[in-house]
Amino acid sequence: MQDPAPSPYLVPFDGSFSQEPMACEPPKDAPSEKKLRERREELTKRLQALQPRFFADGDKALLVVFQAMDAAGKDGTIRAVLSGVNPAGCEVHSFGVPSKEELAHDFLWRTTKRLPSRGKIGIFNRSHYEEVLAVRVHPHFLAGQRVDLPDNPQALWDWRLEAIAAHEKHLARNGTIIVKFWLKVSREEQRKRLLQRIEDPDRNWKANAQDVVERRHWADYHHAYEEALRATSRPWAPWYCIPADDKDYMRMRVAEVLVETIERSEPKYPVLGKAEMVELTALRHELEG
Amino acid sequence: MQDPAPSPYLVPFDGSFSQEPMACEPPKDAPSEKKLRERREELTKRLQALQPRFFADGDKALLVVFQAMDAAGKDGTIRAVLSGVNPAGCEVHSFGVPSKEELAHDFLWRTTKRLPSRGKIGIFNRSHYEEVLAVRVHPHFLAGQRVDLPDNPQALWDWRLEAIAAHEKHLARNGTIIVKFWLKVSREEQRKRLLQRIEDPDRNWKANAQDVVERRHWADYHHAYEEALRATSRPWAPWYCIPADDKDYMRMRVAEVLVETIERSEPKYPVLGKAEMVELTALRHELEG
Repeated sequence: MQDPAPSPYLVPFDGSFSQEPMACEPPKDAPSEKKLRERREELTKRLQALQPRFFADGDKALLVVFQAMDAAGKDGTIRAVLSGVNPAGCEVHSFGVPSKEELAHDFLWRTTKRLPSRGKIGIFNRSHYEEVLAVRVHPHFLAGQRVDLPDNPQALWDWRLEAIAAHEKHLARNGTIIVKFWLKVSREEQRKRLLQRIEDPDRNWKANAQDVVERRHWADYHHAYEEALRATSRPWAPWYCIPADDKDYMRMRVAEVLVETIERSEPKYPVLGKAEMVELTALRHELEG
Repeated sequence: MQDPAPSPYLVPFDGSFSQEPMACEPPKDAPSEKKLRERREELTKRLQALQPRFFADGDKALLVVFQAMDAAGKDGTIRAVLSGVNPAGCEVHSFGVPSKEELAHDFLWRTTKRLPSRGKIGIFNRSHYEEVLAVRVHPHFLAGQRVDLPDNPQALWDWRLEAIAAHEKHLARNGTIIVKFWLKVSREEQRKRLLQRIEDPDRNWKANAQDVVERRHWADYHHAYEEALRATSRPWAPWYCIPADDKDYMRMRVAEVLVETIERSEPKYPVLGKAEMVELTALRHELEG
């Protein structure tokens, strides 16, 4: 199974993760904005070069999960980091309000259907983790899911985390490389960004009363994130808790982990065997007339 | 979670199952053919009456898995037991050779996509269990799946059984009632049936060289069945090992377990609340003019 890309933001695998001390801001000695962008562009170029090799090899699938509070920068990060990667080999799925059909299945069904196949990069903008984040913060969503509550309702979240961990372990054992990002924004930075959205006529379509409502549940969300990351950051499905208050720093850090993760899987163009080479030589002669 | 229907053929939940002593023939004191058919028709009628209630309630999904050696009578049993049940509430999925897209995903992906939603009855004619039965007997199929073999190749089957058990536990906790049948035919009875297929001009289209080849792996298959049933017969996903040498007896026993399983889930037509009753009364007055 995979060998996780190192990063100062890698979430430990032993359940000891604590969200509170994790930074939202870049470190004091972070490179300048210009240097960060240059570095990220260089990483995106490496990603563009790696992807066709990953596809041709077809040995592994790559699942990339993005979770964050509103306005932390998920969409912008996906755009910036993956721009230029051939969309034929890279699918982005955004998971919003579940459909009636989705609610009528178990909670892993709708994301499972969208899992990348071998050779593909699948990006989940929000994911099955909403089931232990938004739903945990707003348990009335469970009514729509017709969930059987265990005798101790608290156990429901443990069941869900156990199911997610087992699911990801199964995926990892069957050819999917998993990497998960929590883009951790501070409450103050989120406030500024939501205000900017409302004030900017080109971006106020993105402003959403719900985002401001969700803000009120800040502590509950952070508790849910902490529990989720503790239960599901494993060598075969690592979480990275990336500081999100500075977009250039965040994007560079995400790009770094992605490139390193793919490189560690050592994708190779398939090498033809002797028989195939003989056939190709014959075909070349035919084309040469 | 569910309370399994009792049956002399229920596979124990403690991993102690042994396939060898399990009968392929009906007991000596089994009812006459006529009595067995009458009983099965009565059960099918109860099933027809239960299904709309199960659908209207919409609280649970029902997944029914059929596995067997060739010619044990899966297709005929599904037809006989479920005939007359509204097909809008009951889907049969047969899983044959996997497609290229299916092979490019983890081995649970293709059956997961076909899982029944709440209110529906989903019948799997063959299932995810082929991954620990046919694939276990013919490990060269693994090459097409590009599986990462563990250091100890034997562990692969334990991984798979562990994944299936976790998957079914997750489904059961999230509203799916699971019931699984192994239709156990004897080697001699299978030989007769395969011969009949070849000799009967209306049925020789069903004869298949592969069926005769698979017969050579009888002991390997039975070992694989035993291991699978030991690892995955649980109160929330019970297996029933039904004697298959007598079709009438087998079908009656399957119908019995199915009806009992649905009845134990106590499906109820939704009861309207006061406000809805007031609205309905107003609508009735409108229709009455």
